[in-house]
Amino acid sequence: MNIGIIGSGQLGYMMINDGRKLGNRYYVLNSNGFGPASAISDGSYENDEYRNFVDKCDIVTFEFEHVNERALEYAESVKKLRPSLKSVELKKDRELEKNFLSSAGIPVADFRIAESFQEAERYAKDYGKAMIKLAYGGYDGKGQVLYDHGRAEEMPGKKFVVEKFIDYDFEASVIASRDSEGSIRFHDPSFNCNSEAIFIYNRAPIEDYGMTEIAKKIMEKLDYVGVMGVEFYIRDGKAIVNEYAPRVHNSGHHTLMGSSISQFEEHIRAVSGLRISRPVLYRPSGSINILGKRLDEAETNSILSLEETQIYWYGKDEVRKRRKVGHVNVTDRSSSGLTEKIEKILDILYKGKLNEFISFQP
Amino acid sequence: MNIGIIGSGQLGYMMINDGRKLGNRYYVLNSNGFGPASAISDGSYENDEYRNFVDKCDIVTFEFEHVNERALEYAESVKKLRPSLKSVELKKDRELEKNFLSSAGIPVADFRIAESFQEAERYAKDYGKAMIKLAYGGYDGKGQVLYDHGRAEEMPGKKFVVEKFIDYDFEASVIASRDSEGSIRFHDPSFNCNSEAIFIYNRAPIEDYGMTEIAKKIMEKLDYVGVMGVEFYIRDGKAIVNEYAPRVHNSGHHTLMGSSISQFEEHIRAVSGLRISRPVLYRPSGSINILGKRLDEAETNSILSLEETQIYWYGKDEVRKRRKVGHVNVTDRSSSGLTEKIEKILDILYKGKLNEFISFQP
Repeated sequence: MNIGIIGSGQLGYMMINDGRKLGNRYYVLNSNGFGPASAISDGSYENDEYRNFVDKCDIVTFEFEHVNERALEYAESVKKLRPSLKSVELKKDRELEKNFLSSAGIPVADFRIAESFQEAERYAKDYGKAMIKLAYGGYDGKGQVLYDHGRAEEMPGKKFVVEKFIDYDFEASVIASRDSEGSIRFHDPSFNCNSEAIFIYNRAPIEDYGMTEIAKKIMEKLDYVGVMGVEFYIRDGKAIVNEYAPRVHNSGHHTLMGSSISQFEEHIRAVSGLRISRPVLYRPSGSINILGKRLDEAETNSILSLEETQIYWYGKDEVRKRRKVGHVNVTDRSSSGLTEKIEKILDILYKGKLNEFISFQP
Repeated sequence: MNIGIIGSGQLGYMMINDGRKLGNRYYVLNSNGFGPASAISDGSYENDEYRNFVDKCDIVTFEFEHVNERALEYAESVKKLRPSLKSVELKKDRELEKNFLSSAGIPVADFRIAESFQEAERYAKDYGKAMIKLAYGGYDGKGQVLYDHGRAEEMPGKKFVVEKFIDYDFEASVIASRDSEGSIRFHDPSFNCNSEAIFIYNRAPIEDYGMTEIAKKIMEKLDYVGVMGVEFYIRDGKAIVNEYAPRVHNSGHHTLMGSSISQFEEHIRAVSGLRISRPVLYRPSGSINILGKRLDEAETNSILSLEETQIYWYGKDEVRKRRKVGHVNVTDRSSSGLTEKIEKILDILYKGKLNEFISFQP
């Protein structure tokens, strides 16, 4: 089968690499420029060749929601797009996403829609503490500011979603998959540590807190096919949806190690019409992002010598601040052992100065 | 780092695919023609371009021992070959291999060297039951015949190794690795089922029976760097070496699932100068060869629906009898559950008629 992936970043790269075993051929549309996925694909297409790309492929999926819309629309029109266009369109406008979730009875933070930043600030003031987010675009902490009982730094924009700030205990997520027959499977939910809206590390398993039931509801409402990552705030043992990603997710990279199946293979199986599998997490497992840096040989061997560790590079030539260039996977017999290893790895990677690698401020 | 692989078969294919995470570039020498490894490499070279290939790479390894000798010799001469030429040269002549093992005090079957098939038969008669093997070439059951108290089918050849037949209880193997600092690690030994000298399936873990100590001795004698598969006969709880393979091995494919590290990644780490890792087998794990057939969608989904199964295709276009075109990996909570799943998979693959897919006779 010829499988097309729109977008050429690391998520597509891992889809191809982990999907190789299934014997498909993988083609990439360079929606955001030639990247890691294109480099290991069976062929890549320039952005304006999207019709040839879709015609070449039996099935088309995407590794990121902010990609060539015409390609998505054309693939949908010829019934090749998995998951469907609707799952992506809701993500183009945070107002649509929020309305979809809340009308489905899914717990989300209180929110209001504003047509100007000044209006957004007024609503934020009512909440006391709030996140002001651009309705269009924005990810990895871009396009959002915190309003905390006073003025926030102004952002240009046409429409804003103002969310009441949730004073959560921690963040979590679940990687869910649904196949073309409607079977749904879940990877064990993970605890996620984000900083400045950038994913730093996670670890699984944790308790469910109702997350899988919510993910199931979202997927069924969308008649979804593929893998979806759903991010949550957990407060007082209850799960509130932050957002969903209609694709494989940063917080599912740990499934490449210590699991009977990765999110990437599950996605490829689902979109290509094969049966998905109930993931078994063999051991407590975690993943730590490598952001904005390379590792020298000593650092590499320090990490590998911890045992039950793997280093994943995405094949990106250029290293920039905040840029995800790889990750470390790690498993351990016990949760406490896993936490210790994660701390050691963070220390090797960032030497206590994580902020220097991710902060917007120099 | 640029890593060169001599040979373009499925072992090279899996080395590249599982070694991608380490961020190297992989180049292939088409020693036996363009194959699966070449198709997913960063570049491939024709057989007579071996000097350019070696010059391009920082390190050169091989996926099979019967490959372009000039390439091996040239890579060794510029100190890029891992493991060393000696490890391969012993494999070119079974007499050398046998003498090396027995002089190292490693238990092997009694053997004699014959210069003609008639001489070989005389020695075989003395043993009563014996394997007569060509000294040069021969693998996967080619180039060997069983002598069983009478005449055996004559084989043309210049030199033969006659091995006293060992009435073993079962066959087993260990996947061992040694890095450039001399650290040695082992995957749990596996029980192997072969038929007509073709690997059918295996399962791990089993008891050690002294196998790891023997593998260690072989690797140290050779100052070996990389992964080695050592095959054994087990009789009365004792391990007798059948042969070693100076490379990743058919009986190590199960390490791609249910293990903290695969044989392929361990090999790439070792040859590229990184630290190897103590493999943790998370659960009982096995592998079943797909020989001489494709799977239709129903067969594929039957296997995938067993849970904790993965299907690996090697990207070979042509399917021939006895040809390895893929394998199935499987894990289970218990050894007995694993055995049941393996039986189900064999039944789906071969429907009780394995012989039709592997026998030399039509």
